[in-house]
Amino acid sequence: MRVGILGGGQLARMLALEGIPLGHHFTFLEPAPDPPAGSLGEVVDTAYDDPAGLARIAAATDVVTYEFENVPASSAAYLAARLPVLPPPAALEATQDRLAEKRLFRELDIPTAPFHRLDTPDQLDAAVAVAGLPAVLKTRRFGYDGKGQTVVHSPAEAAAALATLGPGLIAEGFVRFSRELSILGVGGRDGSRVFYPLTENHHRDGILRASRAPAPAATPELQARAERLAARVMDRLGYVGVLAIELFQVGDRLLANEMAPRVHNSGHWTLDGANVSQFENHIRAVTGLPLAEPCVPGPAAMVNIIGELPDPAAVAALPFAHLHLYDKAPRPGRKLGHVNITGLGEFEVAEGVRRVSELLPG
Amino acid sequence: MRVGILGGGQLARMLALEGIPLGHHFTFLEPAPDPPAGSLGEVVDTAYDDPAGLARIAAATDVVTYEFENVPASSAAYLAARLPVLPPPAALEATQDRLAEKRLFRELDIPTAPFHRLDTPDQLDAAVAVAGLPAVLKTRRFGYDGKGQTVVHSPAEAAAALATLGPGLIAEGFVRFSRELSILGVGGRDGSRVFYPLTENHHRDGILRASRAPAPAATPELQARAERLAARVMDRLGYVGVLAIELFQVGDRLLANEMAPRVHNSGHWTLDGANVSQFENHIRAVTGLPLAEPCVPGPAAMVNIIGELPDPAAVAALPFAHLHLYDKAPRPGRKLGHVNITGLGEFEVAEGVRRVSELLPG
Repeated sequence: MRVGILGGGQLARMLALEGIPLGHHFTFLEPAPDPPAGSLGEVVDTAYDDPAGLARIAAATDVVTYEFENVPASSAAYLAARLPVLPPPAALEATQDRLAEKRLFRELDIPTAPFHRLDTPDQLDAAVAVAGLPAVLKTRRFGYDGKGQTVVHSPAEAAAALATLGPGLIAEGFVRFSRELSILGVGGRDGSRVFYPLTENHHRDGILRASRAPAPAATPELQARAERLAARVMDRLGYVGVLAIELFQVGDRLLANEMAPRVHNSGHWTLDGANVSQFENHIRAVTGLPLAEPCVPGPAAMVNIIGELPDPAAVAALPFAHLHLYDKAPRPGRKLGHVNITGLGEFEVAEGVRRVSELLPG
Repeated sequence: MRVGILGGGQLARMLALEGIPLGHHFTFLEPAPDPPAGSLGEVVDTAYDDPAGLARIAAATDVVTYEFENVPASSAAYLAARLPVLPPPAALEATQDRLAEKRLFRELDIPTAPFHRLDTPDQLDAAVAVAGLPAVLKTRRFGYDGKGQTVVHSPAEAAAALATLGPGLIAEGFVRFSRELSILGVGGRDGSRVFYPLTENHHRDGILRASRAPAPAATPELQARAERLAARVMDRLGYVGVLAIELFQVGDRLLANEMAPRVHNSGHWTLDGANVSQFENHIRAVTGLPLAEPCVPGPAAMVNIIGELPDPAAVAALPFAHLHLYDKAPRPGRKLGHVNITGLGEFEVAEGVRRVSELLPG
C-alpha cells in the first residue's frame, strides 16, 4: 500500500522503518529540508496547506496519516474528501485545542484537573477561582514539549502571563501528581482494540526524558481503568491508529492531562521491549491489517537523547541498550534519538537508565 | 557513517533497515531495476565491475560491505585499495569457489564430506572413488539455492552430469545427514566475536524453506564445537562481519557444507527472535561499533515466502507471526519475504510453522 504521512520527522521515520517490511511505500509531506524520514520514501516539500503539495500526496498515496496533530483542518478536509485520513480528522480537531480536548474529556466523564478558558482579563477571576492556585496557564494551540505554558502562583502572575502568552489560553489546576503515566491504545479499521501497558514518564524542563514500562506497581485494575478512559475517546472519535493519553496519577486516581492522535514518544520503548511496536501497530491500523496484541516479556525503559549526541560506541557497548538515532543535527533541546533498555530485571532497570543517562552529554 | 553495499536485494534491504536507526546512510551498487533496497538509500545502477559505478561507490561511502559473495575480485580489489571492504576480500576468494572453500575447511581441520575436483573426463574415476556414490556434483562457481548441482548414482551419470554442468565441477560425497544446521558468527573490527545459537534448516528443491532456532536438542557441547569451527575460519580470514557456515549433523558429527561471507537466510529469525539481529550486528561490525551479544529469550522459527505472496492480513492475524516482505514481484522459486515466529513454547513452534506454511500459496 502507498502510505502518506503528514510530517517527515522522527515519528514518520520510525513509522516508515516499521512499515516498509510490511511491503508499504511511503510519501512524506514535509516542508523542512533534510527531514529524518527523507531517506525512506518520497518527500513532497511544500507547506502543509499548499494545494499543489496536498494534491500530490492525494495522487501518490492510498491512505494518509500524520505524525503531529497541528495539521491544518483545511488540509485534513481536502485529503479526507479524496482518500482515507486516519486517525480521523475529528481527532485532530479534538487535540489541536487544549480547551476542546479538556471539554471532550469532561463530556466523556474522564477526570481532569479543573480548567477554565482564559482569553481576556475579565476572565481572570473566574479562571483562577476554578483552577485554583498555583495554576498552569497554557496556550490552547501549538504548545509542545512544555513550550507555551507557565505556572502562576497569584492573580497578578496570572494577569502577567495572560499578557505575555495570551489570548487563547486555558487555565488548569496545578496537579501535585504522584507520577505521570501514559496509556497507548490502538484502534483497527475493523473496530478491534489493543493497548500497551501503562508507561511511567519522567519530564524535565517540559521535555520527556525517560519512560519505563510496564509502569512499576501498576495494578491490573489501574491498567483496566486507563484502557477504559482511552476506549471512551476512541469510541467517540471512531478512532483508527495509535492514541496516546498522558495521565497524572494522584494517589489511586487518574487524571487525563492531554492526548495525542499519533504515535508517541512515551511508546518508543515498544521498538525493542514488545513483540510489536507502536509504529507497526499504527501502520497495521491505518492500512487495514489486523492489529497485533502487544506482548511485553519484561521491563523496558527509554531514555531520550536531547540536544547533543552521545558516543554511539559507548551506548552500543552496553548489552542492554538499543540505540535509535533520528539523523537530526544537534541543537539545544532537540530530540535527536533515544536509547531503549531491555533484558534487565525489574530491579536493574533504574540502574540501566542511570548508566545510559551518564553517557548522554548535556 | 556512509555505508556502501554491493547488491541491493533483500539482504541489503534488511541491513539498511537495521542500520538506519544507528544513524548510517546507505548507497547500493545494483544493476537490476527497482531493487528491494532501493527506497532506503542511493542506488548506483551500474554493473558490479563498472569502473564509473565503483568510483561512485568509493566516493560516496566510508566503508563497503556486500550482500552476496560473487562480487568480482577486481571490484573488491579496486574498492579495498580506497576504503575498508568488510568482510575482507579474502573471504570472497574463499567462498566464490566451492573447491577453494572445501580446501580451506580441510586446511583448518574442519570436517567435510569427501570431495574431489572434476573438470575433465579423465578425472571421473578419481572423483567417484574419493566422493563415493551417490555423489553430488556441483559447479564450483555461481551456484545458489540448489542451482548448478545434481546427485549422481553411477559413473555413467557422473559422466553425463560433467558433460552438462562442467567443466569446473566439484564432486562431493552424498551425506546422509541427520539434519542441516547453520552457525552464524560475527567478528568485530576490534577482534571481538559473538555467535548466534545453532539454527536448524529445512530445504526443499534446494531452497531454504524454514529455520528453527535454537536448534532443538543442540547441546552446549555441539554449540561450542560449531563456534570453534567458525572461529577457525574467522581467524584465518581476519574476519569482520557475519559469517554463516552451513553444517550437516551426522549423528554427533558436524560436517561443514558451505559458507557465506554475509548475512544469511538462516539468520532472518534474529530480526524478531533475538535482542539483536544478524543485520544490526553485521552493520555494527563493519562500521566499527561494539558487537552486541545475542540473547535469545525463547524458541523462534522462520518460514520463507517463495514464488507467491500470501494474504498479508491472514499472516498478520496470527499473533506469533512477524511478516517481512522484500518488495519483489512474484516469480516461481523467488524469495519474496519471510515470516518469523516468536512467542511460542518449545512444543508449539512446529505448529506455528505449520500454520504459517498453510497460508503460503505454492
